[in-house]
Amino acid sequence: MRWKGIRFICNPMAAHDGSALPAAPFALDLTVRFAETDAMGVVHHSAYVIWMEAARVAWMEAAGLPYAEIAAGGHHFSVTGLQGEYRAPARFGEVVRVQVTVSQLRSRQISFAYVVTNAATGQLLMTGSTEHICVDLTGKMVRIPEAVVARFRGRKHTGLP
Amino acid sequence: MRWKGIRFICNPMAAHDGSALPAAPFALDLTVRFAETDAMGVVHHSAYVIWMEAARVAWMEAAGLPYAEIAAGGHHFSVTGLQGEYRAPARFGEVVRVQVTVSQLRSRQISFAYVVTNAATGQLLMTGSTEHICVDLTGKMVRIPEAVVARFRGRKHTGLP
Amino acid sequence: MRWKGIRFICNPMAAHDGSALPAAPFALDLTVRFAETDAMGVVHHSAYVIWMEAARVAWMEAAGLPYAEIAAGGHHFSVTGLQGEYRAPARFGEVVRVQVTVSQLRSRQISFAYVVTNAATGQLLMTGSTEHICVDLTGKMVRIPEAVVARFRGRKHTGLP
Amino acid sequence: MRWKGIRFICNPMAAHDGSALPAAPFALDLTVRFAETDAMGVVHHSAYVIWMEAARVAWMEAAGLPYAEIAAGGHHFSVTGLQGEYRAPARFGEVVRVQVTVSQLRSRQISFAYVVTNAATGQLLMTGSTEHICVDLTGKMVRIPEAVVARFRGRKHTGLP
Repeated sequence: MRWKGIRFICNPMAAHDGSALPAAPFALDLTVRFAETDAMGVVHHSAYVIWMEAARVAWMEAAGLPYAEIAAGGHHFSVTGLQGEYRAPARFGEVVRVQVTVSQLRSRQISFAYVVTNAATGQLLMTGSTEHICVDLTGKMVRIPEAVVARFRGRKHTGLP
Repeated sequence: MRWKGIRFICNPMAAHDGSALPAAPFALDLTVRFAETDAMGVVHHSAYVIWMEAARVAWMEAAGLPYAEIAAGGHHFSVTGLQGEYRAPARFGEVVRVQVTVSQLRSRQISFAYVVTNAATGQLLMTGSTEHICVDLTGKMVRIPEAVVARFRGRKHTGLP
Repeated sequence: MRWKGIRFICNPMAAHDGSALPAAPFALDLTVRFAETDAMGVVHHSAYVIWMEAARVAWMEAAGLPYAEIAAGGHHFSVTGLQGEYRAPARFGEVVRVQVTVSQLRSRQISFAYVVTNAATGQLLMTGSTEHICVDLTGKMVRIPEAVVARFRGRKHTGLP
Repeated sequence: MRWKGIRFICNPMAAHDGSALPAAPFALDLTVRFAETDAMGVVHHSAYVIWMEAARVAWMEAAGLPYAEIAAGGHHFSVTGLQGEYRAPARFGEVVRVQVTVSQLRSRQISFAYVVTNAATGQLLMTGSTEHICVDLTGKMVRIPEAVVARFRGRKHTGLP
């Protein structure tokens, strides 16, 4: 399966119940903040890292499991990997669209892939990915709670568009 | 007592033991980060808020009470007030000097005053102040621990220049 | 005129054409980003500075004069003053509402006042204000362009709710 | 050549004059700012992106070509790629050491590799890399100025330890 040039790894948990990860990417639109620009006159590359986080948090919310609830339950998804390819600069005053999808889901790990475009023109700005492990409040790696996995895994449970 | 145009409130605890707050301002030098600039080509005004925090943390360290230790002891200085006057822009590649001094110390509150200059030229860039209350881990306002007050209050304990 | 405890200075330009500044505050809702929290478990105080900026940019957009256009025209509103009073912490997962209104408009200066609340509960989180001067591309203080003043000044031109 | 598990690509320009890239990594020590932490109680992953930038800017300064001068000369190194692997969390109050070295230098591109450790304990916190293209003030990709290449290329010109 390929989507905009990003190869998605098959969901290793999909066979468990016949369901699949959300097929359609979920998108979050964000207005570029002036504080996110730098002296080159464009958005600083670190802002996309924050945007990807905001998009996966919104994805979780849309999937019926707000990250704040997961955190309140004593679990966090700690970032272990980060990649980005920057294609064109975003500028102040633009609306950027951050598409996000789960690219891999394992018992203790979850990976997301992102495509950032200019919402008005569709121009590709950036592609990225992040890898996460599930940790408890002490920072120790643990299994992702089954209720969370079930939400993430089943398309019919996700409530995604 | 006036220092660079900022009036300092007398220390209401000074009478208790005859000691006084550090008379000389403490300074932290910081190199402007490219990420701190914005599309106007100068440093974004929010960066100074971060710099003031870094300077008061360094002040506490120099006073012999690292903030990390205070935090580890279950206390935080929550920001309740913030003021800044911006006089001239800082730019990428410059070193800024953040002078900090305690302007007020009470049983549950502490205030700091700041003067930010260009370290090379001495040009005045910004003056600011912050007010803080002492809170415990639940966020409830509490008295500043006596050991902390003693460090902050006594000049001979602070180790400041 | 008072609004939530903030006194607004009368608009000195109002007499020119009998119009007035927008009477009703304009509001921008923002979802708290995880990156905006700190190790105290709540939103860092510098995030509100970014939020106030986002709100006044949105205000300008709603007033029919996007800041990006003003910037493209060679003008910027440089921040000269900043004040904030923090009443209660915002937390990750909450939606904050940033109300903004113009508190003063002069030929070369503009001031904004802000009230930040929890959008769901209405709890007051922070009040703030900023002062700005109009500068050209070289950073020199100049008069606010008449077209901009006209938009800001006249209620019937602002398109505000 | 391998350094802490990162393979360095041979310098394709080295043959031109027999010189080589700096063999020893350059390091910048940074004190963790409270604003860089998040509600998990550790440093947010986006802070490392800022730290890597600060380290490569310091590297350029040490190499005798301050980035501010390069920028003043009309050139920028725009980020085209970003990778990071997070091994252990950094915490408020710690000093982190960001080692940086040039991993590749081409006529229009430059890549850096980073290793972030706890300066006191030597614990590995993160490894990362960034890729950059040289652009002019209009954002168009151009050749890296020869004077800059010469500085970066020649060990005896770099002034690095």
